Amino acid sequence: MIIAVDAAGGDHYPHHPVEGSLLALKENDSIQIILLGPKEMVREELDKHEYDKQRVHIQNAPEVIEMSESPSQAVKGKKKSSIVMGLSMHAAGKCDAFISTGNTGALLAASTFILGKLEGIIRPTIATYYPTVKGFRLLVDAGANLELKPEMFSQFGTMGSVYSHEVMGIDEPKVALLNVGEEREKGTECLRKAFDELSKLPNFIGNVEGRDILPGKADVYVCDGVVGNILLKFGESIPDALKVLVQSAVKKSNIDPEQAKQLLYILNSAVSEFNYENVGGIPFLGVAGVSMVGHGGSNPTAIKNMVLNAATCAEANVNDKIIASLN
Amino acid sequence: MIIAVDAAGGDHYPHHPVEGSLLALKENDSIQIILLGPKEMVREELDKHEYDKQRVHIQNAPEVIEMSESPSQAVKGKKKSSIVMGLSMHAAGKCDAFISTGNTGALLAASTFILGKLEGIIRPTIATYYPTVKGFRLLVDAGANLELKPEMFSQFGTMGSVYSHEVMGIDEPKVALLNVGEEREKGTECLRKAFDELSKLPNFIGNVEGRDILPGKADVYVCDGVVGNILLKFGESIPDALKVLVQSAVKKSNIDPEQAKQLLYILNSAVSEFNYENVGGIPFLGVAGVSMVGHGGSNPTAIKNMVLNAATCAEANVNDKIIASLN
Repeated sequence: MIIAVDAAGGDHYPHHPVEGSLLALKENDSIQIILLGPKEMVREELDKHEYDKQRVHIQNAPEVIEMSESPSQAVKGKKKSSIVMGLSMHAAGKCDAFISTGNTGALLAASTFILGKLEGIIRPTIATYYPTVKGFRLLVDAGANLELKPEMFSQFGTMGSVYSHEVMGIDEPKVALLNVGEEREKGTECLRKAFDELSKLPNFIGNVEGRDILPGKADVYVCDGVVGNILLKFGESIPDALKVLVQSAVKKSNIDPEQAKQLLYILNSAVSEFNYENVGGIPFLGVAGVSMVGHGGSNPTAIKNMVLNAATCAEANVNDKIIASLN
Repeated sequence: MIIAVDAAGGDHYPHHPVEGSLLALKENDSIQIILLGPKEMVREELDKHEYDKQRVHIQNAPEVIEMSESPSQAVKGKKKSSIVMGLSMHAAGKCDAFISTGNTGALLAASTFILGKLEGIIRPTIATYYPTVKGFRLLVDAGANLELKPEMFSQFGTMGSVYSHEVMGIDEPKVALLNVGEEREKGTECLRKAFDELSKLPNFIGNVEGRDILPGKADVYVCDGVVGNILLKFGESIPDALKVLVQSAVKKSNIDPEQAKQLLYILNSAVSEFNYENVGGIPFLGVAGVSMVGHGGSNPTAIKNMVLNAATCAEANVNDKIIASLN
């Protein structure tokens, strides 16, 4: 299993991608890594670590796509970037997956363009891991597609189902449509048609509301990219907001500084899953390959998890199972 | 100032509406209350309390609209319900505002139908109080209008601005459009047009993202009713989810039961504003009158706050100021 890793993307390259990749090697013996980025930069970073040289390769990719660059221009203009080269290698069968914490728009564009769409898929999507009291569940779409045709909701439900079962280890994933009420007739015309399309899935449990996400009523929450993106970013902001609210509640209480410190420590660990730096990447679903993107701020542990998830995804033939489920 | 209160709506009538109304009388000397509902029921509940009989009146409204009833059928069929009678009295100038914790759909339909729309308003809206680290801010629309024309976004922004200034006491309210990114060109075609319409408001600060709500980057967040409703209900689910997450973090830690109890107490007080039972009602904006709705589960304090907010709204001539701002 060969995983290509973008060593020139995200807020902390090459440090975090390199360190995360090496951590993954220690956890999964069957993985090899190709690090893509300006050769000297990657080499220099690698030299700071002890690692098995048989399992780590460098692919020189001298051009760097910045986080703020226009996705389509970057993909067209920078053929020698880690993103374009990594995905091209994957398309040519030289590796089994590609992961990056770089420019999400560029990654989506390049993944769709270079890998192509899976047979029958209208539009690829980005799914995101969402923290719930039951652990991570899946929210699809997280911002790739803002306006959906009704059939896209059911394709997202199918792809989310297969992914959550094969990669997240959820036994019998339940798919739900995020809506403004539980009844079938709720929502816009598009949402009502989406309900009908989703009803064709054997594991569709119907509409759920905003209050049903955190308790984990379903395993795959389907919505358009506007709702998904706003919810994703809202969730990411919860830990910091809580810290402020709890600190002000602590001030009003009469507990001593030592207790307050312990309280904040426990709170932090309780909401650690909301912290995007810990989430191990999220998949592009519906492309003919395995391509995952992580938050720009991802720490080495998150990148390690991305590598492991990408390997699981490739090993489990998620795409073949998606095609089978669609038919 | 005469406030009509629906004593036959919500999950805890007549107890909570009656008790909440009497609490409001104690805090504002210039208020009188009309309680609407089946006469005997209201009388019996009132008799449990000490109160100033000069300031409390009963209006018999023998029909009760249930929470689950179809809004339009209920409004057409139950002319002698507290909702229809209270709003009709308001339209006839017999009271200055109407509040209810009953069937939201029926309230919206009846408010629009009986009070009529404010001059120039395309569609009335429901705004909701949203908890942030700076205190409550306003989210418009909370579910009344699922598909918006671009001009409706700016009308919602204007109405939210006036309301947040006059009733919530926010000095120079900032209006923002909830979107998937900050740049002007982000979002659907409708959101881009909404941005242009909102740009005509002097206090529009541009697009904000899901992560900007809890830190209180703006004071009035404008969005369609799908996004608003999902966010509203998501927010309501935060305290219970946190409790579960913190309890499991406590179990993994080595703190003693007494400390754990204190921790949960502080956490509860930190997120108390997320608890819908404490929020003092939310306004229908754009109707020619003052009509407010509270959560069915509202406690007496929440209903007291609704009465006081409704009085402030009427006293401040919020509707005249909205019309002035629109022109």
